[in-house]
Amino acid sequence: MDRILRVDMSTGQVTVEPLPDRWRPYGGRALTSRIVWEEVDPGCDPLGPNNKLVWAPGLLSGTTVSSSSRISVGCKSPLTGGIKEANAGGETGLYLAQAGYRAVIVSGAAPPGQWYVLVVDREGGRLEPAPPEILGAGNYAAAPVLFARYGRSAAIALVGPAGEQRMRIAGIANTDKEGRPARMNARGGVGAVMGAKGLKAMVVLGDRKHPVPARDPEGWQAGARRYHRALREHPSTADFYPNLGTPGVLEKVNKLGGLPTRNFSSGRFELAEAISGVALRELILARGGEGATTHACMTGCAIRCSNIFPDAQGRELASAMEFETNGLLGANLGIGDLDAIARFTRLCNDLGVDTIETGAAIGVAMEAGLLAWGDAAAVERLLDVEVRRGTPLGRIIGAGAACAGEVLGVRRVPVVKRQAISAYDPRVIKGNGVTYATSPMGADHTAGNTIGYAGDHLDPRDKVAVSREMQIKAGLLDILGFCNFARGILDIDPESFVALYNARMGTDLTYRDLRRLALEMIRMEIAFNRRAGLGPETDRLPEWMRTEPLPPHGSVFDVPEEELDRIWEGAE
Amino acid sequence: MDRILRVDMSTGQVTVEPLPDRWRPYGGRALTSRIVWEEVDPGCDPLGPNNKLVWAPGLLSGTTVSSSSRISVGCKSPLTGGIKEANAGGETGLYLAQAGYRAVIVSGAAPPGQWYVLVVDREGGRLEPAPPEILGAGNYAAAPVLFARYGRSAAIALVGPAGEQRMRIAGIANTDKEGRPARMNARGGVGAVMGAKGLKAMVVLGDRKHPVPARDPEGWQAGARRYHRALREHPSTADFYPNLGTPGVLEKVNKLGGLPTRNFSSGRFELAEAISGVALRELILARGGEGATTHACMTGCAIRCSNIFPDAQGRELASAMEFETNGLLGANLGIGDLDAIARFTRLCNDLGVDTIETGAAIGVAMEAGLLAWGDAAAVERLLDVEVRRGTPLGRIIGAGAACAGEVLGVRRVPVVKRQAISAYDPRVIKGNGVTYATSPMGADHTAGNTIGYAGDHLDPRDKVAVSREMQIKAGLLDILGFCNFARGILDIDPESFVALYNARMGTDLTYRDLRRLALEMIRMEIAFNRRAGLGPETDRLPEWMRTEPLPPHGSVFDVPEEELDRIWEGAE
Repeated sequence: MDRILRVDMSTGQVTVEPLPDRWRPYGGRALTSRIVWEEVDPGCDPLGPNNKLVWAPGLLSGTTVSSSSRISVGCKSPLTGGIKEANAGGETGLYLAQAGYRAVIVSGAAPPGQWYVLVVDREGGRLEPAPPEILGAGNYAAAPVLFARYGRSAAIALVGPAGEQRMRIAGIANTDKEGRPARMNARGGVGAVMGAKGLKAMVVLGDRKHPVPARDPEGWQAGARRYHRALREHPSTADFYPNLGTPGVLEKVNKLGGLPTRNFSSGRFELAEAISGVALRELILARGGEGATTHACMTGCAIRCSNIFPDAQGRELASAMEFETNGLLGANLGIGDLDAIARFTRLCNDLGVDTIETGAAIGVAMEAGLLAWGDAAAVERLLDVEVRRGTPLGRIIGAGAACAGEVLGVRRVPVVKRQAISAYDPRVIKGNGVTYATSPMGADHTAGNTIGYAGDHLDPRDKVAVSREMQIKAGLLDILGFCNFARGILDIDPESFVALYNARMGTDLTYRDLRRLALEMIRMEIAFNRRAGLGPETDRLPEWMRTEPLPPHGSVFDVPEEELDRIWEGAE
Repeated sequence: MDRILRVDMSTGQVTVEPLPDRWRPYGGRALTSRIVWEEVDPGCDPLGPNNKLVWAPGLLSGTTVSSSSRISVGCKSPLTGGIKEANAGGETGLYLAQAGYRAVIVSGAAPPGQWYVLVVDREGGRLEPAPPEILGAGNYAAAPVLFARYGRSAAIALVGPAGEQRMRIAGIANTDKEGRPARMNARGGVGAVMGAKGLKAMVVLGDRKHPVPARDPEGWQAGARRYHRALREHPSTADFYPNLGTPGVLEKVNKLGGLPTRNFSSGRFELAEAISGVALRELILARGGEGATTHACMTGCAIRCSNIFPDAQGRELASAMEFETNGLLGANLGIGDLDAIARFTRLCNDLGVDTIETGAAIGVAMEAGLLAWGDAAAVERLLDVEVRRGTPLGRIIGAGAACAGEVLGVRRVPVVKRQAISAYDPRVIKGNGVTYATSPMGADHTAGNTIGYAGDHLDPRDKVAVSREMQIKAGLLDILGFCNFARGILDIDPESFVALYNARMGTDLTYRDLRRLALEMIRMEIAFNRRAGLGPETDRLPEWMRTEPLPPHGSVFDVPEEELDRIWEGAE
């Protein structure tokens, strides 16, 4: 149990190693970041053989606890130039943990043009040539080929056409319980890193029947009971997310005036109601068929915030419809049509790209006049033809929003450290602005989402503290393998997490100790960024977000830069 | 005399101010960098209204001394994200200095779509709407329109279609003595900054008959005599450059094995002889007509390294044929044809782009397979159609080599701080590798060219010291307004420069004081970069140049990074 799998793509060698003691306390993001810190030269080319791609399930992944089987992918990011952890649901985390691996570390690169599948089971791993028919194929075509070859009892993490083309919008798609390649380690270009290594897919074999055991079974039972009780009691995990999914928040963000609309030129979208969580739920219910308003993206998740969107005939079109996608590929493009967004979602999963980065890049292209606001057919063509084929135009989008802005001569580009801002405009949701600016990940709401904050989002005064607390908690959840939505539980019963950690690990840590793990991780990530050349002055929102007032509030991002610079001072 | 002209593009206001005492000792690059340091927020958007564009002639520009009327342009660079000084010949430096301006500082931005001409004379300046017929026109069409309107007795600095489109390969073209828009402040995207301000051209009126006076006329005469004697005696300024121009060095660089060939994949080009300085000279002489093997790019230059290239019928095709262009748009693209390179040169001057950045970007596109090595017709089309019209493909090139590499998925991109490396491969000309890595300007041979070094270029051991000395001397020449080729004179008779400085300024500085001015300037530029988020770890060559051996020598860049980091420690 708890071993490391090392894969050298240059030599084809795959080896199993014991877990070094110094890595024992870490899981998920803390482990990927630690391995990247220890083993990756911050000056290396992210798409060269000296970068490493690291998978690490959370510390509680593969156990019987709900919503804990997230998978972290780490590397040096080709998008930000700094350290990256991209987090996803799906089955990869559970299968890897149950196969007994704390991490898979992929180094080197296959010779150009050679593509491999990494097959992992409890005994170890092996590289096999990728079936030629899946090369260049979309994820929805490739996944079934791999299931047919390796059996249905497997989790697959794979790159699509975008990752094969080493596009910086490329993520790594993970199959869900039913085998859809629909759960994405989306951000930072991790799919481009996998593609650059010549690794088309990782297939993890298993049976889901061997949960990761705890060192202290009684303590585990007690902790799990507390945790699940809180999950059933907290309104967000018991009611809000199961019913409305992430799109449930869209109405609120729009009402606050912070929904990115037409390349972040307004915070309110006149068609927001048509793409809200309520509208989505009603449409799915009305259409019936294969649709589902609630769905677990990973085995054993009791929150079930995912969904299955049916077309007008009731046939499955896309999973899952997410707030970020409705924001960036909807409102941000002037598109208020759930069917169109569902087609984009399907296409993005099929191409294997981050819907946030893709939406932001297309928003920039629309501002440049390359396609018209609201033209869903043009977006579909852009994705399905230009990006898929890697035409010059498709590659401009594929390079991400920052690069698209440089190429197309657009100044209003919503990025931090060259990574796109997600669907909370930081001029209104100012706590998220602090997170975007200060997270070592670049703009990333999941690094510390403050939308649940009960006070005034427009008031800049306490937002550094609010973001800091959310970043620490999000970091802790990332370490343990919990979904972001377990944060509500962490807020009300942190001791249940402490109990689970200690029971799993046989330790005696306190909540403060766990927070310290998260803080240590964040500080290490920042240190990596500094060594990669990203000075403290890159911890900033784009200048125009400090000067261009956002309708309807006319607000700008006005959290003082000196406060941003001191966010981690004395934090604990 | 010695005043500052301020231009606010947002309000249209143009004012003349006295020169602040604290700026008095500085000219050229030292003044542009100081003004940028004092007045530009390092975090600003380089293409936004908070950046400033600063022209500053050298301290000796407009005097009677040969080769001293260079013009510096400074700003925050949209290419590197750091500070930028781009240096050019032509008439702008002389006219500005003789009109009595130490600097022109352009702030703000005109409303989108509005374009202006800044007209400058001894009385001050005014903004006039740009003649509609020059908008979108090439520089060869636009310059005559402006001469017709403002009179032939003027120097014009203008942006072409690339600068209007705010492409990062865009420079600012300066007219030469005969009115050709052929001398470029090429590097770092300064043309994009001018375009972003809505400034199409600056026209400086004058008569070239009022040389800038010295405070100490006798000292001036003595210094000038010494300087001109050294110029006539030094083999490089007396013989080499007048006869062969900058292409004279191509044969040497090729023989050393450091001529960038096919996107820096070899250091030797099999067709080098066909594009050498000797071949160029012979072809110009054979064709006769309007051709000229020697030509002064600015009034009063006795070195005359420029040339006029005639077509087969003897009609002027391009000026000037330069080593860097033969390297980056010749060998680097597998093109060994002077006629083709002359057409590219003409096109680049007409579009208003940096031939180095453009050649490097096209090399990357060739490596991506977008066009074939050696396909001159395809390059011409790419420039004349795609870049000129700003098609998606043209904009990929227009964004520069780093961005082109990101978009096209090419790893082997020859840039430092996102600016293209010039025609000395740093794996062989290792002193230039140190300059590329450590200059605050990004990769830029003119910041400290070590090609004249007499020892072994392949030996990494003394190259930090060699580069440091060249960077200090180049900085000093930039301050005074001298062309790089006055460096030979600086080597043998530094006191002539001291005499000229003191006579011009009425001071009593030593050579050490002057070197200190240059060092202070470089350190300030580095400090600006740090505040712009460029950490010390950006002072690096691309990783692949440390790992990929360059044929024929099989050498890599192996100057230790610790030495790079310490280059300015204790320098004087």
